[in-house]
Amino acid sequence: MPRTRIHNMNISLDGYAAGEHVTFDAPIGGAERLFDWFDGRVIHGVDRVDAPVTLDRAVISLWSQGIGVEIMGRRKFGPQTGEWPDDGWRGWWGDEPPFHTPVFVMSHYPHPSIDFPNGTSFHFVDAPPHEVLRLAQEAADGRDVRIGGGPSTVRQFLQADLIDFMHLVIVPITLGRGVSLWEGLAGIEDRFTVETVTSPSGLTHQFWNKNGHD
Amino acid sequence: MPRTRIHNMNISLDGYAAGEHVTFDAPIGGAERLFDWFDGRVIHGVDRVDAPVTLDRAVISLWSQGIGVEIMGRRKFGPQTGEWPDDGWRGWWGDEPPFHTPVFVMSHYPHPSIDFPNGTSFHFVDAPPHEVLRLAQEAADGRDVRIGGGPSTVRQFLQADLIDFMHLVIVPITLGRGVSLWEGLAGIEDRFTVETVTSPSGLTHQFWNKNGHD
Repeated sequence: MPRTRIHNMNISLDGYAAGEHVTFDAPIGGAERLFDWFDGRVIHGVDRVDAPVTLDRAVISLWSQGIGVEIMGRRKFGPQTGEWPDDGWRGWWGDEPPFHTPVFVMSHYPHPSIDFPNGTSFHFVDAPPHEVLRLAQEAADGRDVRIGGGPSTVRQFLQADLIDFMHLVIVPITLGRGVSLWEGLAGIEDRFTVETVTSPSGLTHQFWNKNGHD
Repeated sequence: MPRTRIHNMNISLDGYAAGEHVTFDAPIGGAERLFDWFDGRVIHGVDRVDAPVTLDRAVISLWSQGIGVEIMGRRKFGPQTGEWPDDGWRGWWGDEPPFHTPVFVMSHYPHPSIDFPNGTSFHFVDAPPHEVLRLAQEAADGRDVRIGGGPSTVRQFLQADLIDFMHLVIVPITLGRGVSLWEGLAGIEDRFTVETVTSPSGLTHQFWNKNGHD
């Protein structure tokens, strides 16, 4: 059975996974420190990792394994709000978006699809999580669907009980403010079995597997 | 730069990675307990893992990432010794060997190549480690080469300083006898930077990265 997965979900010790105000200069809305612990690249498999191969890099490289489609919120695609302006924006990632699959961007406002030569394409959908997931699963053709963030998008899918697996990365910093991953999700751990391992780097990796799927 | 990698190298607390006498009934030579901790399958990517996705399974699934060729010792291929008998033996793995790449079997005795429909092929070579590695790298076409074992084969490549990365799994059992991974390798850790992490399962994973490759 294909899974719906979340990978490399970085949160601070106080539970924030992004800043509140995404701008062209601050793609994580001021919470960029959450990502300082990584080398900034999305890693497609351990063979693409520069030496050394560490636990962190190995676990991060699971991100693309067996993924057929990503679903993301509109703020992960760009900082614009309301109607999409005609500004030529094609996402944060230049000519080589790292996804290499269709990406469904959740937005209430229409936007034409965008295709990149490397296999990435962006499709804009105005629908609730379970409906977007159904469309994504059709497009994924038997492969898994990744929920790519940001945190408010992840939270919607967790609230709707649509997540089979989540890889959470607890970064040992405090942010004091931002977008909380946990708001409205009190007690959600009851639906999962959580495995925790701490990396020599100081990061803590958690593997959340939904109960009842063995 | 392509790497030469070792994955899922299971050893006991007393340093044994296999038993001494491989037979048709005992492919690990009596040290099968080293593998009781896993579910017995080789895992091609986290998307093929049954729920739950654990740290152990995630790390084990790195095995096939970016690998173009495996090199193995003849005892990993079969229990026969001396000249290969005409016994129709095609390895331990039935009609679906898990490798899906060319496999170079090191043997002093000639044997015709064997091809499987799933992309696995076995080629028998009588040459020292550095020469077998050169042939394997040519065949791997830019991908990494995996040294697949058994332990005496791994030891030869470590002694010849041909290994860039080793994933070691310390299993919390004692065997008392067997084939040691470490024999003749005293002080080898000086050539590597070793990262250690203990899994909630009780296994300890070590990532050995050769120094001077950053």
